Amino acid sequence: MSAPPSAPASAAALPADSLLELRELTRRFARARDWEQFHTPKNLAMALSVEVAELAEHFQWLATGADAELDAPAREGIRQELADVLLYLVQLADQCQVDLRQAALEKIALNGEKYPAEVVRGDARKSDRY
Amino acid sequence: MSAPPSAPASAAALPADSLLELRELTRRFARARDWEQFHTPKNLAMALSVEVAELAEHFQWLATGADAELDAPAREGIRQELADVLLYLVQLADQCQVDLRQAALEKIALNGEKYPAEVVRGDARKSDRY
Amino acid sequence: MSAPPSAPASAAALPADSLLELRELTRRFARARDWEQFHTPKNLAMALSVEVAELAEHFQWLATGADAELDAPAREGIRQELADVLLYLVQLADQCQVDLRQAALEKIALNGEKYPAEVVRGDARKSDRY
Amino acid sequence: MSAPPSAPASAAALPADSLLELRELTRRFARARDWEQFHTPKNLAMALSVEVAELAEHFQWLATGADAELDAPAREGIRQELADVLLYLVQLADQCQVDLRQAALEKIALNGEKYPAEVVRGDARKSDRY
Repeated sequence: MSAPPSAPASAAALPADSLLELRELTRRFARARDWEQFHTPKNLAMALSVEVAELAEHFQWLATGADAELDAPAREGIRQELADVLLYLVQLADQCQVDLRQAALEKIALNGEKYPAEVVRGDARKSDRY
Repeated sequence: MSAPPSAPASAAALPADSLLELRELTRRFARARDWEQFHTPKNLAMALSVEVAELAEHFQWLATGADAELDAPAREGIRQELADVLLYLVQLADQCQVDLRQAALEKIALNGEKYPAEVVRGDARKSDRY
Repeated sequence: MSAPPSAPASAAALPADSLLELRELTRRFARARDWEQFHTPKNLAMALSVEVAELAEHFQWLATGADAELDAPAREGIRQELADVLLYLVQLADQCQVDLRQAALEKIALNGEKYPAEVVRGDARKSDRY
Repeated sequence: MSAPPSAPASAAALPADSLLELRELTRRFARARDWEQFHTPKNLAMALSVEVAELAEHFQWLATGADAELDAPAREGIRQELADVLLYLVQLADQCQVDLRQAALEKIALNGEKYPAEVVRGDARKSDRY
């Protein structure tokens, strides 16, 4: 038996892959609030950098940000800010028609050529210094 | 027949889900270069904000950043910066033991309560102004 | 008659120039709180980027951020964030032994050569595109 | 004898105070290039965050960014980025009709109340944790 015609759009099955699933969920979220008008690539890029700063704020006075330096509220804050960054990133990529997974895989390959393991081992200097 | 014992670690099967796959690939990348020592949460948070700014730079003087305003080099640059942001985000979440997909799903649910569709429709003001 | 020997350091006359005056005031502020230990150049750079994001946040969903788009609380927030950015900038320059005024004057001269008025008039593209 | 009527505007005397001097110089620079049209508060805020990230980039993999960790090119880069940040900050404040020196002095006074020296000595936690 097929799904009843009255099934709301938001009940449609979600993609199995996490990045595609989040893309679909953020689309529905923005559409339901009529927020698509604000989500220009430029505004999303700006919102993304604001969220990244809120994330960085948790680490700014710490020595390294390692677990032992963080209390429970900080850890929960970090978790939520990481989520915010991902959600804006997914939306910005969506507006720019970029397949995030594909772009990331290509970038890893590119970085592999730019920073050959045997040359840069243990050295974090930028490649343009070589 | 099982895999030969000499199979290199990097040839091990990758997770099917994109976020887990990228987490595994960035782990291998850092390990092969002995870069784990630089990848403290604090340093990764800083690197993440640098990449986000490189992304934002493409949009700063544009009206909206919509497709028609971007030329091919800008589009390729944006694609690569989006990838960089995702790769650092995955690494930072990994160092903080945060499951990015799970955190993002919870944040969407939280945002749904914070910004009820019927209240905020067409209004982008921050929730704390309500 | 000269000042009494018991006059506290904080009562000493301030430099007349605004950037030098703020440098002296931020030094006194940090010293009085024993915060100099946290004010490494790296931490100050991170704090600076957090403050800049708090400033940017006021503009992210606006069309241009022009006066007519801002209400009184936003204007007051912007004013305070501009101050925070300047205060961290002055402290970071101080830690890096950089004379901000001198560096800015040199940068204006450099930019004048990089972007000759007759070549770039009305065009905001980056110089490396020419 | 008065100045000849042909004296160019750019030869007019500059204010003695560094922040006012830089404000005047950035105004002339933008006017000569017809760049005022791009300098909306929003675009300047975005440009400011890009420059801050370029500054932060010099510190991201260092332990503290202290002098001994920096080579000469890094130091020169930092000097130039500090200048860029100040120049955009001055322009943004100008567009927002904010007197930077006055705002910074008020913020120092406000911070003095928010973080009383005898309470926060040696502790960098945010005031809202108290």
